[in-house]
Amino acid sequence: MDRRTFSRRMLVGGAAAAATGVTSLSLGAVEASSAENPPRTAPAGGVVRRLKMYAEKLPNGELGYGFEKGKASIPGPLIELNEGDTVHIEFKNLTDVDASLHVHGVDYDIANDGTRMNKSHVEPGGTRTYTWRTHAPGRRKDGTYEPGSAGYWHYHDHVVGTDHGTGGIRKGLYGPVVVRRKGDILPDQTCTVVFNDMMINNKTAHNSVNFEATVGDRLEFVMITHGEFYHTFHIHGHRWADNRTGILTGPDDPSRVIGQQDLRPRDSYGLQIIAGERVGAGAWMYHCHVQSHSDMGMAGLLLIKKADGTIPGYEPHHAAGGTEKKAGAKGAGANADKAAKGAAEHQH
Amino acid sequence: MDRRTFSRRMLVGGAAAAATGVTSLSLGAVEASSAENPPRTAPAGGVVRRLKMYAEKLPNGELGYGFEKGKASIPGPLIELNEGDTVHIEFKNLTDVDASLHVHGVDYDIANDGTRMNKSHVEPGGTRTYTWRTHAPGRRKDGTYEPGSAGYWHYHDHVVGTDHGTGGIRKGLYGPVVVRRKGDILPDQTCTVVFNDMMINNKTAHNSVNFEATVGDRLEFVMITHGEFYHTFHIHGHRWADNRTGILTGPDDPSRVIGQQDLRPRDSYGLQIIAGERVGAGAWMYHCHVQSHSDMGMAGLLLIKKADGTIPGYEPHHAAGGTEKKAGAKGAGANADKAAKGAAEHQH
Amino acid sequence: MDRRTFSRRMLVGGAAAAATGVTSLSLGAVEASSAENPPRTAPAGGVVRRLKMYAEKLPNGELGYGFEKGKASIPGPLIELNEGDTVHIEFKNLTDVDASLHVHGVDYDIANDGTRMNKSHVEPGGTRTYTWRTHAPGRRKDGTYEPGSAGYWHYHDHVVGTDHGTGGIRKGLYGPVVVRRKGDILPDQTCTVVFNDMMINNKTAHNSVNFEATVGDRLEFVMITHGEFYHTFHIHGHRWADNRTGILTGPDDPSRVIGQQDLRPRDSYGLQIIAGERVGAGAWMYHCHVQSHSDMGMAGLLLIKKADGTIPGYEPHHAAGGTEKKAGAKGAGANADKAAKGAAEHQH
Repeated sequence: MDRRTFSRRMLVGGAAAAATGVTSLSLGAVEASSAENPPRTAPAGGVVRRLKMYAEKLPNGELGYGFEKGKASIPGPLIELNEGDTVHIEFKNLTDVDASLHVHGVDYDIANDGTRMNKSHVEPGGTRTYTWRTHAPGRRKDGTYEPGSAGYWHYHDHVVGTDHGTGGIRKGLYGPVVVRRKGDILPDQTCTVVFNDMMINNKTAHNSVNFEATVGDRLEFVMITHGEFYHTFHIHGHRWADNRTGILTGPDDPSRVIGQQDLRPRDSYGLQIIAGERVGAGAWMYHCHVQSHSDMGMAGLLLIKKADGTIPGYEPHHAAGGTEKKAGAKGAGANADKAAKGAAEHQH
Repeated sequence: MDRRTFSRRMLVGGAAAAATGVTSLSLGAVEASSAENPPRTAPAGGVVRRLKMYAEKLPNGELGYGFEKGKASIPGPLIELNEGDTVHIEFKNLTDVDASLHVHGVDYDIANDGTRMNKSHVEPGGTRTYTWRTHAPGRRKDGTYEPGSAGYWHYHDHVVGTDHGTGGIRKGLYGPVVVRRKGDILPDQTCTVVFNDMMINNKTAHNSVNFEATVGDRLEFVMITHGEFYHTFHIHGHRWADNRTGILTGPDDPSRVIGQQDLRPRDSYGLQIIAGERVGAGAWMYHCHVQSHSDMGMAGLLLIKKADGTIPGYEPHHAAGGTEKKAGAKGAGANADKAAKGAAEHQH
Repeated sequence: MDRRTFSRRMLVGGAAAAATGVTSLSLGAVEASSAENPPRTAPAGGVVRRLKMYAEKLPNGELGYGFEKGKASIPGPLIELNEGDTVHIEFKNLTDVDASLHVHGVDYDIANDGTRMNKSHVEPGGTRTYTWRTHAPGRRKDGTYEPGSAGYWHYHDHVVGTDHGTGGIRKGLYGPVVVRRKGDILPDQTCTVVFNDMMINNKTAHNSVNFEATVGDRLEFVMITHGEFYHTFHIHGHRWADNRTGILTGPDDPSRVIGQQDLRPRDSYGLQIIAGERVGAGAWMYHCHVQSHSDMGMAGLLLIKKADGTIPGYEPHHAAGGTEKKAGAKGAGANADKAAKGAAEHQH
C-alpha cells in the first residue's frame, strides 16, 4: 500500500521552530541513499489529504499558524503538495478576532477565498474547512497548453486588521506552500525566509535568523515578502536560476543565473543551491541588499560546515549580533519521514 | 479583398469607457465559432494604416487621448498591431499646452520620438503625424537573431509639465499598445489596468475599476505603471506565465507561473487567463499587494459569471465600495468587428 | 602560444574615464573583419591571470578602484573573464580607512569574501590577494545540471562606513564584472551605467553621462544599482531580451523583449543592442523612468551617429544640460587589443 504521510517536523522545539519556520508538511518523497546517485525527485500527485490548521496568539502577542494547538510558528508550517493533490484544511481560529486562510497559486472556488468579501473568513472560536486543489500541466480542449500548479506559493490571513489582512500579516499569519511537479528535484532541507517590512520571519533587527547545512547539501529557500517595502535577497558565494524551480533545466534554458532575488510585497520565489558548491564551508552571509535595510540588520548567516562539522574562520559571537540556531531540517526529514502523525489521509 | 478594419469599441458610453479604458483598435483577427476549436490567432502583418489621435481636456480637468474628438478616454484607446504593420498617426493637440505621443517598443526614427529635445512635440492646436513601424523576428546579415516587435507596449505624453511628461501622465495621457506575432493567441477581451501612483486608470481610491467576464472567456490584461511607486498586481484564483505572452509555450518553457506581477513606473506587461479556469465563477478580487496600497483602495473586481449570468456569493454593494460597470468588451468585439469606422486604411 | 592579454582602456583620459566608467579589462576576443561576417564570439576560458587593483581617494573626495595607482575611476574598471578563467587580484588599499573587494557571481572561498566578518578586508596601506574562479556549465555527479559562471556581475567594497559597505559604495567603490561563455557574442563597446541613489556613475543630476556610437555598432550595457532606491532603465527606440545575455537565443526563447529594465539596489544586468537598428541615428535619450528621478536629471544620451558622423536633429547644448563626452570604447578595443600591459598572465 502506497501510504503517504504527514509529519510536522520539530527541530529544537516549538520556540526554535517559531523563530525559524522550518516546520513542514511533506508528502511522498522517494529516498536516495547517496549523493552520487540521481537525486530524489517528486512523485506524481493525486492524493486527497486532510489537515488541521490553527491560528493562535503567541506568548509575545504575535499571531501564528500551526498544525497543532499550542504549536503555532512564524512563519507557519510548510505545506508541500504534488501536482494533482487535493488538501482539505480544517482551520480553527483560536484568536480573539476574525481570521482566515488565503492562498496563492493553487485551485480553489470562491467559497475558499479566505476574504471577508466572500464571507470565507472564520470568527473567533470558529472552524471552516478550506479545500485547495492542484493539477498537472496539460492540453486544453482547444489545444492550448495549460500550466500546472507547481510553484513556490504562500498562504496568509486576509481579514485581521483590514480587509487585506494588514494586521494579521504584520503579526505573523503567513507561511509557505510548495507545489512540486513529478520529477522535480527534492531538497535536503527547506529554509523559509519571509521579509516582513524590516523583519525576517518577524524577528527584529539583529536577532538574525541563521540556517545550518553541510557542504554538498541541496538547500531550498522559499522567499516571501510582506508589508510595504521592496527587498533584494542576496546570499554570498551562491547563485541560482531565475526560473520556476531555481534550477536550470539544461544548456538551452535562457534564464539568468543570479545571486540576488528581487522581492516585493507578497512575492514568493523558490530556489535551490548546493551548499558551498565551488566555494566551500564558511559563515556565508545572506542579507537584503537595500543599503539601509542591511545596515538596520536585515541579515543572517548560512552556516555551511565541513563534513567534520567545523566552519572555517567563523566566530559564533561576531556576525550580526545574532544567536545561532539549529534551523535546518536535515536530510529532508519530512519528505523521508514515513510515520504519519497529526493528520489523516486518503488515497483517492 | 482582405480588407482589415479599425473600430473603436464603446461599451456603455464615453464615460464608462473613460473609466475603464477598454476602447480599442483591433486589426485582422480571425474568428472561431467555438471554444472547442483551436483558438483564434493573429494573422501575419504587413498592413499600412492611417489613424487619427486627439489629445484633449476631459470635463473633470484631466487629459486623455482618443480616436475621435470628444471621445478621449483614460487610458487612451488600445492600439493593436501585427508584426510588419506600419501605422501613421495624425495627432491633433486639442489641449492648451504642448503635448506629444511617445511610444515604447515599436520602430520609429528620431523625428517621431515625441520629445521636446527632438522637437517632435506638438503645440496647442497643432497637428503632427507620427509613424510607427513594426517587424517580425528574423536573422541579421551576420547570422544573429533579431527579435520582433511583438510585445505589450504603451504610449504616453513626454512633454506636459516637464520634459519627461510628468504632468501629462499624471492627468491621464497614456494608453496601451499590443503588437502581436503571427500565431499569437487572440483574447476574447482585453482589459487595460494602469497603476498611476495610487490610482487605477486615474480613478481614485474606492472608485474601483471592475471587469466582467463569463467562465471560460480568454481574458487579456495589459498592465502599465506610471508615477513614483512600485506596485504588485495580484488576481485572486488565477495564474499566468512570466514570459512574453503570459502563456507558456509548452512543457519546456522554464518560465515561472505566477499569480502576481511586479510593476514599476512605465513597466508594461501582458498576460492571458481563462476566466474562472479550475476555480469557477465569483467576484474575484484583483489588487495591488503593497499592503498600504490595497488598504487605500487600489483594488477592483474581476466579476466572473456562470453561463447563466449569476455570480455565486456576490453582493454588488459590498466589496471595495466600488460601483460595478460593464467593463469588458465581450467576444473580442473589436477584433471581430468588421465595420470600418474612424480611420482609413491601405493594404500595402 | 595562445597568449591572452590584459589591457586598460583609457579614452579621453582619467577624468573622462572616471566620469563614464568605460575602462575595461578584456580577454581573449577573436576579431572579425566585417559586420557582414559572423560576429566575434568569446573563446573558451581556462586562463590564470594576475591583476593589480587599487582603492584610492579621488581629488573630489570620492573613492574609486583602478588597475593603476592614480588612475582610479567611478565606476571601477570592467573585469571581463571567460568561463574557466581564474584571476588573482592583488588589492592595495591606498585610502585611509579599511576597504575591501567583494564580488558577486564568481567562485571564491570564504577567505576571499571581502567582509569584516570573515576578516577578509584590508587596512589602510595594506595588500591582500583575492582569488576569483569561474567555471563552465556541466553535469554534476548526480546527473543534475550545474550552471556556469557566465553573467553580468559586479564588485564593490563591503566595509567602508558600515559592515555592508554603505559608505564605500556611496563614494564610488564599485565596478562591473562580465563573465562570458564560449560562443557568447562580443560587443563593439561596453557601457557601464550605475544608478547609485539619484546619481548615474556618481555624477549628480544634470551632469549627464552620455555615450557615443555609430549606427550598426553592437553596444553592451552593464547596469548596476546601489543605494536605497529602485530604478527603471529605459532607452528610447531600442529593445533587448530579458534573459541571461540580453540577446534572444532564437525563435523558441520565450523571454520578453523589453525596452526598460527594472533595477534594485545591487542588481546587475547586461544587454546588447545594435545602435540605431531600424530607428537610425539620433540623440536617443536614456533615463530612469521613475517620474521624479527623470525630472531630477537621472538621464543621459546615447548619441548615435550616421556613418558620416552627423546626428540628425541634435543640438549639443540642449538635452539635459549635460556635457557630451566621448564615452565609448570603439571597436571593442580592449577585446581586440593584443598588447599585454599592466598584468602578467599564465595559461594553466
